[in-house]
Amino acid sequence: MTRITILSTVRSPIPQLKMTTTVWQRRHVLGLADFTPGEYDTVLQTAASFQEVLARRTKKVPALQGQVIANLFFEASTRTRSSFELAAKRLSADTLNFAPGTSSLTKGETILDTAKTYLAMGANMMVIRHRDAGVPQTIAAEMDRLDTRVGILNAGDGQHEHPTQGLLDLFTICSLLNFEYPRLGLLAGKKIAIIGDILHSRVARSNIWCLTSSQAEVHLAAPPTLLPKWFGEIVNDESSGIPRRQLFIHSDIEPALKDADFVMTLRLQKERMSAHLLPSLREYHQNYGITRDRVKLCQPDVKILHPGPVNRGVEISSDLMDDPNFSLIPQQVTNGVAVRMALLYLMGSGSH
Amino acid sequence: MTRITILSTVRSPIPQLKMTTTVWQRRHVLGLADFTPGEYDTVLQTAASFQEVLARRTKKVPALQGQVIANLFFEASTRTRSSFELAAKRLSADTLNFAPGTSSLTKGETILDTAKTYLAMGANMMVIRHRDAGVPQTIAAEMDRLDTRVGILNAGDGQHEHPTQGLLDLFTICSLLNFEYPRLGLLAGKKIAIIGDILHSRVARSNIWCLTSSQAEVHLAAPPTLLPKWFGEIVNDESSGIPRRQLFIHSDIEPALKDADFVMTLRLQKERMSAHLLPSLREYHQNYGITRDRVKLCQPDVKILHPGPVNRGVEISSDLMDDPNFSLIPQQVTNGVAVRMALLYLMGSGSH
Amino acid sequence: MTRITILSTVRSPIPQLKMTTTVWQRRHVLGLADFTPGEYDTVLQTAASFQEVLARRTKKVPALQGQVIANLFFEASTRTRSSFELAAKRLSADTLNFAPGTSSLTKGETILDTAKTYLAMGANMMVIRHRDAGVPQTIAAEMDRLDTRVGILNAGDGQHEHPTQGLLDLFTICSLLNFEYPRLGLLAGKKIAIIGDILHSRVARSNIWCLTSSQAEVHLAAPPTLLPKWFGEIVNDESSGIPRRQLFIHSDIEPALKDADFVMTLRLQKERMSAHLLPSLREYHQNYGITRDRVKLCQPDVKILHPGPVNRGVEISSDLMDDPNFSLIPQQVTNGVAVRMALLYLMGSGSH
Repeated sequence: MTRITILSTVRSPIPQLKMTTTVWQRRHVLGLADFTPGEYDTVLQTAASFQEVLARRTKKVPALQGQVIANLFFEASTRTRSSFELAAKRLSADTLNFAPGTSSLTKGETILDTAKTYLAMGANMMVIRHRDAGVPQTIAAEMDRLDTRVGILNAGDGQHEHPTQGLLDLFTICSLLNFEYPRLGLLAGKKIAIIGDILHSRVARSNIWCLTSSQAEVHLAAPPTLLPKWFGEIVNDESSGIPRRQLFIHSDIEPALKDADFVMTLRLQKERMSAHLLPSLREYHQNYGITRDRVKLCQPDVKILHPGPVNRGVEISSDLMDDPNFSLIPQQVTNGVAVRMALLYLMGSGSH
Repeated sequence: MTRITILSTVRSPIPQLKMTTTVWQRRHVLGLADFTPGEYDTVLQTAASFQEVLARRTKKVPALQGQVIANLFFEASTRTRSSFELAAKRLSADTLNFAPGTSSLTKGETILDTAKTYLAMGANMMVIRHRDAGVPQTIAAEMDRLDTRVGILNAGDGQHEHPTQGLLDLFTICSLLNFEYPRLGLLAGKKIAIIGDILHSRVARSNIWCLTSSQAEVHLAAPPTLLPKWFGEIVNDESSGIPRRQLFIHSDIEPALKDADFVMTLRLQKERMSAHLLPSLREYHQNYGITRDRVKLCQPDVKILHPGPVNRGVEISSDLMDDPNFSLIPQQVTNGVAVRMALLYLMGSGSH
Repeated sequence: MTRITILSTVRSPIPQLKMTTTVWQRRHVLGLADFTPGEYDTVLQTAASFQEVLARRTKKVPALQGQVIANLFFEASTRTRSSFELAAKRLSADTLNFAPGTSSLTKGETILDTAKTYLAMGANMMVIRHRDAGVPQTIAAEMDRLDTRVGILNAGDGQHEHPTQGLLDLFTICSLLNFEYPRLGLLAGKKIAIIGDILHSRVARSNIWCLTSSQAEVHLAAPPTLLPKWFGEIVNDESSGIPRRQLFIHSDIEPALKDADFVMTLRLQKERMSAHLLPSLREYHQNYGITRDRVKLCQPDVKILHPGPVNRGVEISSDLMDDPNFSLIPQQVTNGVAVRMALLYLMGSGSH
């Protein structure tokens, strides 16, 4: 006999946060460049609460019941859209999916007009992915100009930022260090290596903003053709907010891996080969692939992250990817749902 | 025994209608050509009730709980499908989406067989869009022949009709004139201009049937190549039901706009250019575009409608489209959800 | 404050089964080759219970509330996906749809990695369709190896099996023979003809395993080029488990139809013509099409089944397909939802 009573909103639908965190003020989440430590901790703690919800038999909470979340994926991505969709459903929101192939865009409508159409239909939040940098920012600015209360969440814009990936990576690391009480402070003294196509990676950008907000040491390694010039500027520019001693850049992988606690390896876009930025996948793997031999350079309990989808045998050797002693890749996907629930919840119920 | 109580709606899920309207008898909504004034008023009043629901914090009502609505969009349209899908979800119906690209149609199944498949799966209503005129009618006839109680709602068929667009335009105008109590009678003595590609527009057709049912004066203006011949016949044919003094046809825009209370401008299909029916977009805009200069011909408080998506700078100048003093375009999108909720509700709970 | 109480299952959400059936032990449903008679009867009885649910006004039961079902249709199929999606929704599960066109597969991810991504997101069951035989089996083996409790349901793999189609065909026949109490034993002494492209048909394979588990006589008829060789082996191989007297193979249609109680005609893939396995659709219809003349060879109350979508006038004459005295095609579609609900329910709540 099954009797399902959802009383969850009467008493603590979302378990109490366990620490004093910043009161959430942010209507939009467009990037991590200006995130404060308090905001990181609020997201981490809220995501930890949702992890508890996801461990229950009934995984839904009515937090966003009656709200509409529009997923505007101008750039297609089944896995990221599925993660956002599941996060929204578990908060009891209704979702609308915009499919670029069959859309009015092909009929000449502007992106802003598309967003305004979903606004007019009643969307309370919009999750935006676009192949060009700046699109979520432009839409957010227009929503504010129109004095709406609609929140915009960047699900990846060009080579600019992918903040939910940065936050889920942070959460994956911090909740490994302290499952009950993940927080930025846990990263103090940790060494984190980011390996791969830094130049073109929005994931790398968001992670760098994120990790350098903590007391971690961040080491980047990439072929010289895939390293951005601007990091040199940032490292030498005190106004960037990134402490000079925290960000290190290498063109060989070994110094980056040396004693690393966490290794983030980035997806290699195969288009880079045709652009003659790389000789071959095989050579890339030889020089920058994460292998059993190379992880011996790291701390014994090093963990490896990858934003997915993985090119097996390119960024990481296939057996290492499947070894739960090293790989955090499944946890990243699982945590992605909790972190996206946390952000939608904070954005949707904030006092902003 | 199933008992679902959503306590949020224990009292008056659907607010009481405020006037005596026709008892709804119509199983299908295929076009507006044979709509009666009582039916228009029932739709307007029901949509006004749903506008109230949409203003609540919890925007869902359990009116169609357990019912299945199949969206069969043989012609793709993200925005119209999103509007129908949201309307269905807010009535607590389950929706099934038929995607033409990946369908059995490419495997040789007929359209009627596709509809009968969704019938057999348990669809209670079907929303049909097709590039050919008459498809929803054919499906409706088959559903009746099979003695089902399934309702068919036309979401646009070829160049024939687009009744929900006509009704949402009517609702947008009438609820501007009287928000609490929108009704056809409010249009008496108003002048409404419809500008653009009348010949190929199902939106124009539905709007003409709709508006000429009221006491409004309807003025059409289009390039001669985009004006249908049959209006001449209708205007001169008393059996058409359209009073001769109500419909006026112009090939210049100025007499149509003169003292107009409302201007409906139609989307220009760019294919018309390749068919040599129009010289250029620029020339079209020069002759038939709605601009700040031209609106001076209209009533000072004139409002402009467009079914979307808009070609900015073609049918209407970009700044005018964004000026809330003139443009009703966002309201049309918002009202589209309420009007579609009203139709699905009436069709789904009627005594027919 | 919203309080939602779903009391719907306080009493018998799923009507009591009316017979002693096997306790369900199967986590995955990958094919019917190893199904036991007790398992067939459990599925038939459970589906009969859900038919009762579907006849109620409120057709939903909360059996799988909070569970996530991922539909991974690597091979697109709108009608089968819609059937699974509706089955899941009526069990109150949440669904995630994987769209192959816009997926990571095009980015080089392996199928197993895709499945593991949905596992990590929290999918409790996965419905898999793939153009290659063996994919659901491979995914199921991986899920077991990883010690997950995720159930895999084969929605069609290459030319191998399509177990839900086999089960819905069985249910359609058995519930016609005894609506209240459908069971395998009802087929004893019945003659069932399967006509068409046996060689390439996963539907035929699943049906043959299914029907030969009963005491029915199964007669296959096909052009020699579309008959598999392996049936000869099976019929002569006692270890196959198929009693030698039950399966008969013909290259003419007449002996198969003679006194048949049920005729299953298979969809003809038009690609067979370009592969020169068949001269023409017209000749196929002449030799193997089900027509009014040919049904006279069968029992007077013979019924015809087809898995859909039908090529009208090829596998079956158009008027016969639409004649409810003969055609069970709409019932197959309806029963498909009940059978899929039964399988998802058994897999999702079993003690396995």
